[in-house]
Amino acid sequence: MRTELLTISLLLSLSHVVTAETLPPLNLMPMPANVQLGTGQLAIDQSFSVAISGYRDAMVDKAVQRFIGQLSKQTGMLLVETLQKKPPTLSVKVERGRSSSERLGEDESYQLQVTTSSATLSAPNALGIFHGLQTFLQLVETGANGFYVPAVAINDEPRFAWRGLLIDVGRHYIPVDVLKRNIDGMAAVKLNVLHLHLSDDQGFRVESKRYPKLQEMGSDGLYYTQAEIRDLIAYAGDRGIRIMPEFDMPAHSLSWFVGYPELASTPGTYKIDPATPYTVMDPTKDGTYKFLAKFIGEMAKLFPDPYFHIGGDEVDGKFWNDNPKIQEFMHAHGIKSNQDLQAYFNQKLERILSKHHKIMVGWDEILRPDLPKTIVIQSWRGQESLAGAAQQGYSGILSFGYYLDLMWPASRHYGVDPMADKAAVLGPEERKRILGGEACMWGEWISPENIDSRIWPRTAAIAERLWSPQTIQDVGAMYGRLSDLSRRLEWLGLTHRSHEAPMLECMAGTDDIGALRTLANVVEPVKDYARMGAVTGNWNFRAPLNHLVDAVNPESETGRKFGDLVQQYIDSRYQDHEAEQSIRAILTSWRDNDTKLEPILGRSFLLSEVAPLSQELSMVGTTGLSALDYLDRSQASPQDWRMQRILELDAAKAPKAMLLLTVTEPVKQLVELSAGGQPQ
Amino acid sequence: MRTELLTISLLLSLSHVVTAETLPPLNLMPMPANVQLGTGQLAIDQSFSVAISGYRDAMVDKAVQRFIGQLSKQTGMLLVETLQKKPPTLSVKVERGRSSSERLGEDESYQLQVTTSSATLSAPNALGIFHGLQTFLQLVETGANGFYVPAVAINDEPRFAWRGLLIDVGRHYIPVDVLKRNIDGMAAVKLNVLHLHLSDDQGFRVESKRYPKLQEMGSDGLYYTQAEIRDLIAYAGDRGIRIMPEFDMPAHSLSWFVGYPELASTPGTYKIDPATPYTVMDPTKDGTYKFLAKFIGEMAKLFPDPYFHIGGDEVDGKFWNDNPKIQEFMHAHGIKSNQDLQAYFNQKLERILSKHHKIMVGWDEILRPDLPKTIVIQSWRGQESLAGAAQQGYSGILSFGYYLDLMWPASRHYGVDPMADKAAVLGPEERKRILGGEACMWGEWISPENIDSRIWPRTAAIAERLWSPQTIQDVGAMYGRLSDLSRRLEWLGLTHRSHEAPMLECMAGTDDIGALRTLANVVEPVKDYARMGAVTGNWNFRAPLNHLVDAVNPESETGRKFGDLVQQYIDSRYQDHEAEQSIRAILTSWRDNDTKLEPILGRSFLLSEVAPLSQELSMVGTTGLSALDYLDRSQASPQDWRMQRILELDAAKAPKAMLLLTVTEPVKQLVELSAGGQPQ
Repeated sequence: MRTELLTISLLLSLSHVVTAETLPPLNLMPMPANVQLGTGQLAIDQSFSVAISGYRDAMVDKAVQRFIGQLSKQTGMLLVETLQKKPPTLSVKVERGRSSSERLGEDESYQLQVTTSSATLSAPNALGIFHGLQTFLQLVETGANGFYVPAVAINDEPRFAWRGLLIDVGRHYIPVDVLKRNIDGMAAVKLNVLHLHLSDDQGFRVESKRYPKLQEMGSDGLYYTQAEIRDLIAYAGDRGIRIMPEFDMPAHSLSWFVGYPELASTPGTYKIDPATPYTVMDPTKDGTYKFLAKFIGEMAKLFPDPYFHIGGDEVDGKFWNDNPKIQEFMHAHGIKSNQDLQAYFNQKLERILSKHHKIMVGWDEILRPDLPKTIVIQSWRGQESLAGAAQQGYSGILSFGYYLDLMWPASRHYGVDPMADKAAVLGPEERKRILGGEACMWGEWISPENIDSRIWPRTAAIAERLWSPQTIQDVGAMYGRLSDLSRRLEWLGLTHRSHEAPMLECMAGTDDIGALRTLANVVEPVKDYARMGAVTGNWNFRAPLNHLVDAVNPESETGRKFGDLVQQYIDSRYQDHEAEQSIRAILTSWRDNDTKLEPILGRSFLLSEVAPLSQELSMVGTTGLSALDYLDRSQASPQDWRMQRILELDAAKAPKAMLLLTVTEPVKQLVELSAGGQPQ
Repeated sequence: MRTELLTISLLLSLSHVVTAETLPPLNLMPMPANVQLGTGQLAIDQSFSVAISGYRDAMVDKAVQRFIGQLSKQTGMLLVETLQKKPPTLSVKVERGRSSSERLGEDESYQLQVTTSSATLSAPNALGIFHGLQTFLQLVETGANGFYVPAVAINDEPRFAWRGLLIDVGRHYIPVDVLKRNIDGMAAVKLNVLHLHLSDDQGFRVESKRYPKLQEMGSDGLYYTQAEIRDLIAYAGDRGIRIMPEFDMPAHSLSWFVGYPELASTPGTYKIDPATPYTVMDPTKDGTYKFLAKFIGEMAKLFPDPYFHIGGDEVDGKFWNDNPKIQEFMHAHGIKSNQDLQAYFNQKLERILSKHHKIMVGWDEILRPDLPKTIVIQSWRGQESLAGAAQQGYSGILSFGYYLDLMWPASRHYGVDPMADKAAVLGPEERKRILGGEACMWGEWISPENIDSRIWPRTAAIAERLWSPQTIQDVGAMYGRLSDLSRRLEWLGLTHRSHEAPMLECMAGTDDIGALRTLANVVEPVKDYARMGAVTGNWNFRAPLNHLVDAVNPESETGRKFGDLVQQYIDSRYQDHEAEQSIRAILTSWRDNDTKLEPILGRSFLLSEVAPLSQELSMVGTTGLSALDYLDRSQASPQDWRMQRILELDAAKAPKAMLLLTVTEPVKQLVELSAGGQPQ
């Protein structure tokens, strides 16, 4: 047996060798803990069938039904009457029921064995079956003789128990069907916590029957009914995903004050409006705690998850400083600082939550030694803060480095490890307190149209970091698998790729968007908080998100691949003529693109702002072609020419219309190399 | 007032003149009965609001809510609190309630007046409001200064009262959500009848509580529950669309016999399987009518529409000939022919339907003088048959010429008029009996993935034929508006354009589908019944629909536009150098495509069959470029060369892998012209 097996680590290191000639590498994401590739393939055709044995679990039955539906969709084959045929193509074996659907750290392992004649998936409980079925779907390939799964033995379990995705539905409401398709995406990459940031200054998104003015006055009418929440929780639960609610307090809570101004530290009337002045909750009033006790009681029932997130971030103390009654209270109770006042507030909250058997979760700021060790810290500040909490006895999850709204490339998120650097000093017990991490989709610039493209496929790189062994690090291999996964995710109904055309057509007012797409494919939204930084006056959360920056992907695949191609050409010492031809074809299309695009940009108020980018792309094309001409002739380019071109290329790096041109750098390299001599 | 208005007929005749320079033509489809274009534009921005006055109709309130949602989606603007602001951007005025939601011929007219400051939509009842709101959405354009609607006065009403779409869910089950998005598409083009072909040999798709074995044994588990049907009817009703059920009898009814073999003319046991021998119902047994009386009673309640379709097509008499008891019955009752026996059956059915206040509808074959004049004939045989029925006093609807499964171009459907030719001899009363028509989406080759692309956008051309004045005939203008409508339809969730990429990626097993798309864009499925004709043995309705023929559009837009471009070049006597450049670029990409595509085709069992087409496309590119070279040099091409090329091009017209290459003809023309002399 051993001799015919090839371990995946060997396979990965050889990936450039084996790709074309022999077997393709397995397009699995997250990469399982242990994969042994066998010989041959299991054919997947219309005779495909599944049998379930062992512990009878309704969740498993449903999961297998969904799996068959997904396999049907993926292959175009109508699969009916697939259950319980003998002998089945796939045997699913479940050892036992789940101990509790919300227990963190439950066994999620599974074993998948595929031979040329059949496959077996076994797991201690339903969770492993869910994960194993997703792995099986990812293994299905289109081959020269039919659909198939390669013979393989997989032994898999997650590295971290908490693998989350936060979606901020407070700043922009996201409809239930959009959440559901994102839950399907989460299940596909083995994430297991959906963290809903349900309230923020711009909106309160859950129906409270006890305090209906929360959603009625604080949401623009855009909120989830309790029935919708229950349905969503069941939907996620069926897929092994917990839903943790977050109600951010005492800051980020303006939407609460529209209906209940008595909760605010600053007297006044409030409304959902970009111009409304901001304040925070008053933690000194009895009424605040009476309100929160009843509210949390209601929500604790609605959300069965044992974890309950109370936010706690970014409290601006000036509102407490400005309120004499609050100052008086602090003085009377010996509370010395605003941090201490927030700690007082958090202790009260923690007691309310305990009463409802909930574990309190909050952002870095809530960490104070006077809170019980049962609470969980979510760190947006970094691994140091997380390790520090672990040393003090607190559990924590990492979100620093996983903020999807910062528009980083997948590779950068992929490089962030909850255990990295600072965790090296931790002892084994302390290390166990680092539960995992969460990708965070903050909602300033998201809409139902573009949210999928902000979350996917980049979140899969984070999911792999949280699931797979720490040693899985090869960025090139990751991008190959990410690209394969990305197209599979669209089969789930996600629109991270298909959203672009309709958005571009809307901007252009025509379906003649070929040239616009050429530009869209080489630009990226500005990074970090640059877009928010450019806002003058109050941020208008109602401003339409229908500009080019809202449609293009956070990471330009064209840009990345063009850079790789130029590097390949340089590495070949200009001898790779096929690469050169491809580069020339691309540069020519860029050079000629502005002429085609210019009339379209002129006709649309949404697109006129990107005209300078289009001209710069044309310049990049022209410049790159000239540089290649010099290199072809082995003729040194004039220094003046180079200096002038480099000035232009550097100028083209400046953001325009909140967009960055991603293809200047490789062309600049070609220009520099055209000075002559061999490349370094 | 008059001087600033331009009638739409003038606008259309000038469309080539006004397009680029002055005003764009209105992209309305179906074209309203009367359009007068004004001067200036009404800005559509975030202050947009609607007020409703006149008769309070909950249907109108809901329609306005949907309209605002759609406008939000179309523009990317978050529109909230838009109702009842003063003064509103759009005033909606309803005169009265609807007399009955299912009365055929109800007033559907509306008036829409748009000025530079506001808009008014008025209608006698909710139906006109539905239609007018759709017109308004189609008028919204992206301009240099913002979104806008041009100033316009529209006075509109339909030419025919019955404007239907048949969807055959019997042969392949189509899920409810797919039907719903198609209902949205129907509403967008003002169709008003969804005809569901609910049973056929391959499946019985509605839950019967009285006879549950119908769906349980006759559907592969793929059927609509009664709750789903009620929900679907309400969904359609909200949009002014009736749902007419069809249960095809006495033929096309194999699925009934799986659970109830006693209904069959041929004794035996039946199952849903391509190999099961076929038969028809036994119209001589009392039991058949007892069954149908109860079944129709149940379905008459479930489907509130006054029309009830009993099929009646394609009865093969041999099953009656072969059954001695049936022969005996015919002899005993003096029934002379199988046609007479079917008439006997239909009379019995008609009496059952009458009892439930239903009007019987059936295909051509049911027309016999002994049936009451209240029945409606749906003609698949042609306008002559329809006119004949009208002369005999029967009402009718046309489906001949509107079969979407025949893969005709939109232009061909567009040329079919229910009133054409044969109807000229009819008197006014007889003409009134021609109620309208129905596009028919027969289900042999449809799946949830590709059905939208078979229905849309071509059905919009049929919808225009049925709604707009008979004089609207310009095919070029129709295609321009169809193309604009097509992108708008994707905003409704239809996938007639976005379905292609995932299907191609599945076939290719990669997302590197650029070259495959180039091929896919110039081929069309074979026409008429050529695909079914190529089936050997029994048609396997379970065969996966995952080949290239299943993914490509019925009509190649690239092919049509390439033909137009070549014609433009020829018409310019080879002087249009811009056109020539475009033609050369296209031909070059085709010439070079096979080299890129060949390795992908070789790796996939689904794509290897299209390799000859890819090679032929390459040949078309090479040949076209050579022909252009001769034309450029004003040098006559050698006759041998021409003959050889024409032979190759003609050979390339033969279908391969059920696909037709659409671009050989214009290149053949170039080859012929390269003989020298001036083009004709």
